Amino acid sequence: MNTLLVNELYEQIDIMPIYDVHTHVDWKTGSAANIGDILSYHYYTELSNSADFSHGTFPFDDPRELTKVIMPKLALIANTAQYDWLMTISQEFLGLGREAWFAENWEVIWERSLEVMDRPGWRDELIAQANLVRIFLTNQYDDDLEGLDTGFYTPCLRTEPFILWSNAAEREGLSAFLGRPITTVADFCAVVDKTFEKFMAHGMGYAAMSIPANFRTFFVADEDAQRLLDRAVQGDAWDARDRATWGAFGMNCIADACRQHSRPYHLMIGVNRDVYAHGVPAGTDLFNAVNSMRGYDYVLNTYWDVDFPTAVLSDTTGLELTAAAWIRHNVYPSGHWWYSNQPTDIAREVRRRIDVVPSGKLIGYFSDAYYLEFVLPKFRMYKFELACALAERMERSLIHPNMDVFSMDDALALAEDMLLNNPARITGIG
Amino acid sequence: MNTLLVNELYEQIDIMPIYDVHTHVDWKTGSAANIGDILSYHYYTELSNSADFSHGTFPFDDPRELTKVIMPKLALIANTAQYDWLMTISQEFLGLGREAWFAENWEVIWERSLEVMDRPGWRDELIAQANLVRIFLTNQYDDDLEGLDTGFYTPCLRTEPFILWSNAAEREGLSAFLGRPITTVADFCAVVDKTFEKFMAHGMGYAAMSIPANFRTFFVADEDAQRLLDRAVQGDAWDARDRATWGAFGMNCIADACRQHSRPYHLMIGVNRDVYAHGVPAGTDLFNAVNSMRGYDYVLNTYWDVDFPTAVLSDTTGLELTAAAWIRHNVYPSGHWWYSNQPTDIAREVRRRIDVVPSGKLIGYFSDAYYLEFVLPKFRMYKFELACALAERMERSLIHPNMDVFSMDDALALAEDMLLNNPARITGIG
Amino acid sequence: MNTLLVNELYEQIDIMPIYDVHTHVDWKTGSAANIGDILSYHYYTELSNSADFSHGTFPFDDPRELTKVIMPKLALIANTAQYDWLMTISQEFLGLGREAWFAENWEVIWERSLEVMDRPGWRDELIAQANLVRIFLTNQYDDDLEGLDTGFYTPCLRTEPFILWSNAAEREGLSAFLGRPITTVADFCAVVDKTFEKFMAHGMGYAAMSIPANFRTFFVADEDAQRLLDRAVQGDAWDARDRATWGAFGMNCIADACRQHSRPYHLMIGVNRDVYAHGVPAGTDLFNAVNSMRGYDYVLNTYWDVDFPTAVLSDTTGLELTAAAWIRHNVYPSGHWWYSNQPTDIAREVRRRIDVVPSGKLIGYFSDAYYLEFVLPKFRMYKFELACALAERMERSLIHPNMDVFSMDDALALAEDMLLNNPARITGIG
Repeated sequence: MNTLLVNELYEQIDIMPIYDVHTHVDWKTGSAANIGDILSYHYYTELSNSADFSHGTFPFDDPRELTKVIMPKLALIANTAQYDWLMTISQEFLGLGREAWFAENWEVIWERSLEVMDRPGWRDELIAQANLVRIFLTNQYDDDLEGLDTGFYTPCLRTEPFILWSNAAEREGLSAFLGRPITTVADFCAVVDKTFEKFMAHGMGYAAMSIPANFRTFFVADEDAQRLLDRAVQGDAWDARDRATWGAFGMNCIADACRQHSRPYHLMIGVNRDVYAHGVPAGTDLFNAVNSMRGYDYVLNTYWDVDFPTAVLSDTTGLELTAAAWIRHNVYPSGHWWYSNQPTDIAREVRRRIDVVPSGKLIGYFSDAYYLEFVLPKFRMYKFELACALAERMERSLIHPNMDVFSMDDALALAEDMLLNNPARITGIG
Repeated sequence: MNTLLVNELYEQIDIMPIYDVHTHVDWKTGSAANIGDILSYHYYTELSNSADFSHGTFPFDDPRELTKVIMPKLALIANTAQYDWLMTISQEFLGLGREAWFAENWEVIWERSLEVMDRPGWRDELIAQANLVRIFLTNQYDDDLEGLDTGFYTPCLRTEPFILWSNAAEREGLSAFLGRPITTVADFCAVVDKTFEKFMAHGMGYAAMSIPANFRTFFVADEDAQRLLDRAVQGDAWDARDRATWGAFGMNCIADACRQHSRPYHLMIGVNRDVYAHGVPAGTDLFNAVNSMRGYDYVLNTYWDVDFPTAVLSDTTGLELTAAAWIRHNVYPSGHWWYSNQPTDIAREVRRRIDVVPSGKLIGYFSDAYYLEFVLPKFRMYKFELACALAERMERSLIHPNMDVFSMDDALALAEDMLLNNPARITGIG
Repeated sequence: MNTLLVNELYEQIDIMPIYDVHTHVDWKTGSAANIGDILSYHYYTELSNSADFSHGTFPFDDPRELTKVIMPKLALIANTAQYDWLMTISQEFLGLGREAWFAENWEVIWERSLEVMDRPGWRDELIAQANLVRIFLTNQYDDDLEGLDTGFYTPCLRTEPFILWSNAAEREGLSAFLGRPITTVADFCAVVDKTFEKFMAHGMGYAAMSIPANFRTFFVADEDAQRLLDRAVQGDAWDARDRATWGAFGMNCIADACRQHSRPYHLMIGVNRDVYAHGVPAGTDLFNAVNSMRGYDYVLNTYWDVDFPTAVLSDTTGLELTAAAWIRHNVYPSGHWWYSNQPTDIAREVRRRIDVVPSGKLIGYFSDAYYLEFVLPKFRMYKFELACALAERMERSLIHPNMDVFSMDDALALAEDMLLNNPARITGIG
């Protein structure tokens, strides 16, 4: 490892502003109100629960108490990249070094966090300090978007409710949003349309979905969808095949709407929900290594005029995604998701993508953050791996028989494309 | 590669005593009696058979002849990590350098090996020289454990006979051990109980099983198991579904016993037995890249109060194991098994685990050795990869934007946890 | 990265002549006639189509126009390893540096390419310059092989028509070749025999097949094959199971012929054909990460006396291939195919193979080239990764506790085995 070169590259990349194409930030608050909010992020509760089992329970309603309870467990996860995110938050935003993080000091940290995070203007200070220029959100169809600052926030539509739609409560929610019962395919199209119109009026980024492992897309006739709808309205339960059929139908409907409104559809492929029975909230999901993108051939081919930024959860789908982006014009590899969002797997995928996918198609990273505080440390983790990959490429290029010299300027231009220019061009959100 | 730093780290890690949580050592002998025993290890016979085909046959009954026959083939596998284990055994224990290993010299090597390995006290010398402090065994339910030195050896129960239990001979063996025919679920529970009581009386480490690819766990009612048992007693053959049902039932029974006796259950996931028709004994098994840990959700969730150290055979299950250990409190990634027990795959998995799994949950390595002589060279192979990973982490930490300086002391403390403290704490065998 | 050492190694390896065990070169022409031929290679058209969508259409019939159309798109793929191949062709063979490659300069490049490539003797100059000593071809059963220079070219039989044989046109082609209708299993054997005899008369290398993901091999009785044949002759359509049965039967027939003629069977495992609907010709195929070599157990076991050089398309099958070559005497890992033929995945697989497979079984690389011009740049890409792996092994060996010093001479000997000696010995084509 050429530490001097990596460091020089990193420092230049770190200066670049942050354009974050996928977060779960709540735009009405944006930042955390205290360190308890930060520690409630599932990474800390799940790792703490994993290291020192507490049946998945923490005092989530009481951030002060949560802080007190979780602090003694943090020493057990101090080796993790996730703990390092927390340390950057502490150092950069709270002015507290690592040495402050011992169990008995929890109240000092708590008080300091209130002082910083609970003051008016903290969000704006944070945005300036972290140099955040654009934050994409993940929104439910009925989220309140009135007053959204579309110069900074970009709403994106969670499409799970339309696609994994198999219970009465979900249907009633959508009916309420539509303003009438959903009993026909036409009604379903209407609620999709109404949703897209609402989102378009607020600067919609894209439709998005985190998709179960081994999802399959295929053509579903309206009549077949109507039959499923009739049975659902009558209260008949759907079996696995029915759910798969509706899933394919629902995804096609959303893709139709993306086409109509010229919006991308961001796929996040491969999660297994609710498999760990004793986990913390949002800490019960895993993934399946047995998963292929072959299930997406139909939707990617049929909606050839829709762009599909795509993230995959399993390392075993990494080369499939690279190959898809290599030949498919409408697939854009996007970031490094969840269990693949750690140095080892980022390092491999970055190299693969840079070597064989047209550079203009690469969306470098997204933070997946729940509070704006997490955007900076997560991007730093990625930027460091990117700097390592680019430094290696610079060194290799000097002696590689086929390559031209890959200069520092070339490296920084590629980083800027991946981090800023490509995501802005692909989403059309400048 | 920072060779100075790696070397400095390696030398410190090499000093640490060896605590080996999984071997196939025969406690009554422990060490080999001659070089023929060493060369009979399937790694040498299978690689020799692969490089220079001999229909899987070698003179296994005659270690002197085996030595003579296999020696000329060893030059063909001199590039392998497995050959390097042999060279360490030769250099460290026999005092013979690599240059001694040519075909015509087989008798010199044979004689020298007798001189060293066949003398009284060799086992104790070896244990002292290799600094072995604890050896876990793999034992059949009816193995003789009387006289076992529980200050050094820890017996672990092979549970395959209870779970993959589909032929009459296996049932008769268990019946003989129980002292009465096994015809009811209660009888089956009784033989499991009797086995655990026997093992607990001899300092039981854990229950263990090497599990076929794509095994699935689920609830099986006693009545369903009884129906299978009735049919087996009547001599009816089981089909694939019956075997799967009994497999799930048997694993649940063993997990129940683990719970009752507060013992871990060590899972070794993903082998395909007997797929190569022309292999040497123990050299006919491979694995399936299409394999997921999803099949274990039931047993891991239901037996939340049982600890599951877990090894996986396929590289494609590596991130699944890392993710499972990251959120599941009772999954502990354990070592690097068989086809994944080589530098490339160890290197990747070590980095993944160190980055995202709480450090106290990591069981660094086990040797899987059949003779005590193999423990040292195999651990050295691992310790070298660990030193590489830790050196890289030290270097990265100096310039990483989120990390604290990871010092030599930090690195050695982590290595000690992975190699000594964690396995002792997780198994409860001090 | 030790750039000095890598460079020193690379330069020595680069001097070695090129023995290329798999190409798609047309022996009657061999080299390209102009730069349009080069640019028509699917890597350039598919990447251009991916970067700047043109519905998979290019003026393939007009190489001059193709050059003009594709040139402006090349800047979009300048980061790729595939573009680097093109640059080596330009620099080494056309004497044009990278700076010549801008859209407006297309006619200059076109003219220069005609000047070089269209002159008499270009093919021989190219062969001398690139130091090509042996080129294996991929031939259809009815290819004209009369006049083939068997001192340089080795024909290999594409066996897809025999195995994926489910339409009338394919049957008629084979019948025409045989000289009578194929209506019985005996007829089918006869056409296989006639094909092998023809190829053997022209210095046959091996039989080969690129195989769909999740292909399975098993015993098929002649009567079952005859029933399928009867139905095909009557014009009945085959379903998926019928095709799978014929596939297994056909592969067994070819393996029988390989046995009879002492020729290897080169397997290329894991492609999904025609999955991208808007791709360029030869740019519509992908692969499936969910794929196992378990499907080949039958053929590898039954034809134990046939050698199977084997390439895999998916990264997820990489360790399966390594493990198969480790224990199976008749499996030889061969090169790095297609989507796995890029630096990241070559690097991992080279290290795995060198560490645990007997060195004499490793077939380093093949170019898969359509024109002889591509052989050099592709081999250079591989040779560079090989140099990196060998340099790392040299460095590691100096401090590794089990390894002997791995010297420059050792490294070059291993490279020569992988690139020259092994492929010549395994194919028997000196």
